[in-house]
Amino acid sequence: MPAQPTRRPPTPGPSFDLATYLETQCQAVNRALDRWLPAERVRPATIHRAMRYSLFAGGKRLRPVLCLAAAEACGGSATEAMPLACAVECIHTYSLIHDDLPAMDNDDYRRGKLTNHKVFGEGIAVLAGDALLTQAFEIAVQCRAWPRYSHQTVVLELARASGSLQLIAGQVADLEGEGQPLSASQLKYIHERKTSALLCASVRLGGMSANCTAAQLEALTVFGYHVGLAFQIIDDILDVTQTSEKLGKTAGKDVAAHKATYPAIIGLEKSRRIAARLTAKAFDALRTFRGRAQALEALAGYLLRRDR
Amino acid sequence: MPAQPTRRPPTPGPSFDLATYLETQCQAVNRALDRWLPAERVRPATIHRAMRYSLFAGGKRLRPVLCLAAAEACGGSATEAMPLACAVECIHTYSLIHDDLPAMDNDDYRRGKLTNHKVFGEGIAVLAGDALLTQAFEIAVQCRAWPRYSHQTVVLELARASGSLQLIAGQVADLEGEGQPLSASQLKYIHERKTSALLCASVRLGGMSANCTAAQLEALTVFGYHVGLAFQIIDDILDVTQTSEKLGKTAGKDVAAHKATYPAIIGLEKSRRIAARLTAKAFDALRTFRGRAQALEALAGYLLRRDR
Repeated sequence: MPAQPTRRPPTPGPSFDLATYLETQCQAVNRALDRWLPAERVRPATIHRAMRYSLFAGGKRLRPVLCLAAAEACGGSATEAMPLACAVECIHTYSLIHDDLPAMDNDDYRRGKLTNHKVFGEGIAVLAGDALLTQAFEIAVQCRAWPRYSHQTVVLELARASGSLQLIAGQVADLEGEGQPLSASQLKYIHERKTSALLCASVRLGGMSANCTAAQLEALTVFGYHVGLAFQIIDDILDVTQTSEKLGKTAGKDVAAHKATYPAIIGLEKSRRIAARLTAKAFDALRTFRGRAQALEALAGYLLRRDR
Repeated sequence: MPAQPTRRPPTPGPSFDLATYLETQCQAVNRALDRWLPAERVRPATIHRAMRYSLFAGGKRLRPVLCLAAAEACGGSATEAMPLACAVECIHTYSLIHDDLPAMDNDDYRRGKLTNHKVFGEGIAVLAGDALLTQAFEIAVQCRAWPRYSHQTVVLELARASGSLQLIAGQVADLEGEGQPLSASQLKYIHERKTSALLCASVRLGGMSANCTAAQLEALTVFGYHVGLAFQIIDDILDVTQTSEKLGKTAGKDVAAHKATYPAIIGLEKSRRIAARLTAKAFDALRTFRGRAQALEALAGYLLRRDR
């Protein structure tokens, strides 16, 4: 598969079966999460039911699968990357639970199911998010440590990508920008932090679990940043162009909430071109791996072409 | 100072000046927290203002000071324990911010100041708590690691004490028990998790930073558990017996909210006796340190005698 810079992502070749890969990795991630999370019957049952409700609500497992694929591209194994993949998914899920709260985005549906606070109440939803965030660190340090990538390094990576300068910064800017006219650069600031930061950390952590070289880590950083930004722009586009049924959440909600989106600020066609260009840059970064990044390539192509 | 089990805690001798010790350690903790937290001007300023508002709202710094004192009792230094002391304080502060939310205890005042959500709004208060929780792990792994007490060990200690089986379990049980008649054992379950768990982790982490022996860690565990439970029972007693002005928060609130407390379930006098007995057990545990735990002794004595 060619990895030269291109305006259009290469169609995954017949040599790589993305559907099977996705299904296999998702199942492995689900099994691992199930093993690490306290069972529903463990006291206090409410909190474990609430944590599991959102964690197993049918998410695409994009971040953990990217983490595993990054580990494999660096010659590592999915098994050794698994604690980090699961930690990243716990962080992602906690951020969704808190984002959906009435005081934030006030969303009733997520992935076609009622949001956490609609089922368990606001108090438990706050605590379920807190518990998943805390659990993420407990799970992350189960990974294998290397001299270059110690447990200190991976905890710092995870904490910084999720902290007040990245993931939370994006959510704050999003909250503060609601109902206000945002510039394209302000919107980029939000998307970089709300989406790119954790996605970038996902592939970097995958690389770290495989004891990757400095060059590989740099390539994964460039890849993760660009895929993350493209992913969020496509989310904005789908909110405008798709039905609620297909998205599993309220479509057109960004428009209704006067939320700034790429299509609203720069138009639909230009948004599509930017997403394609970002994806091309992500592909370009994978050249370092000389054909060993087939899964990452296929995943990036899929993310650009998806319709929900 | 005698360390035999006793029904009354020993009065701190003239050899130990607790007021000066507390002030010195508090100032050191405050300086360290100030160094580790992003400055208020760092973008997005709102979240850093909100984090600092609650972190520097005049808390007693009980947990971090206990952490430093435990390190010293084990022959270690406050400097090496400082990252763990600050991490524990970040966790404590996050838990207060979230506990005060309308969906939980719905409190307007804390330490004589408006609660975080009253100043910054609910959305930012949720995120400020999230950010402090995340920051705690970033700060914790700045500590010195020992072969026996690796960064993995300290992260696990912190995550488990704060997670869905301890700190958060206590909050869930508290939330679910509101307005319901609780038995003494149910109340003990809540207090052990909401208060003892993190307090116990504070002294254990202090010991770990000093590369303590297994016997010392066990002694600190017994000490922390009993001091933590005594501390919470005294909090219940003060809610009944003191004015709002003195407490810096709404007094009598537990009673008004039909919250179960020790005085309500077993009476004021019996509650006092239990608190004194628990403190005596905590003192007893300190015998292991053969006089090197003066600060821990003085702190425990102070906690039992305090009037706010």
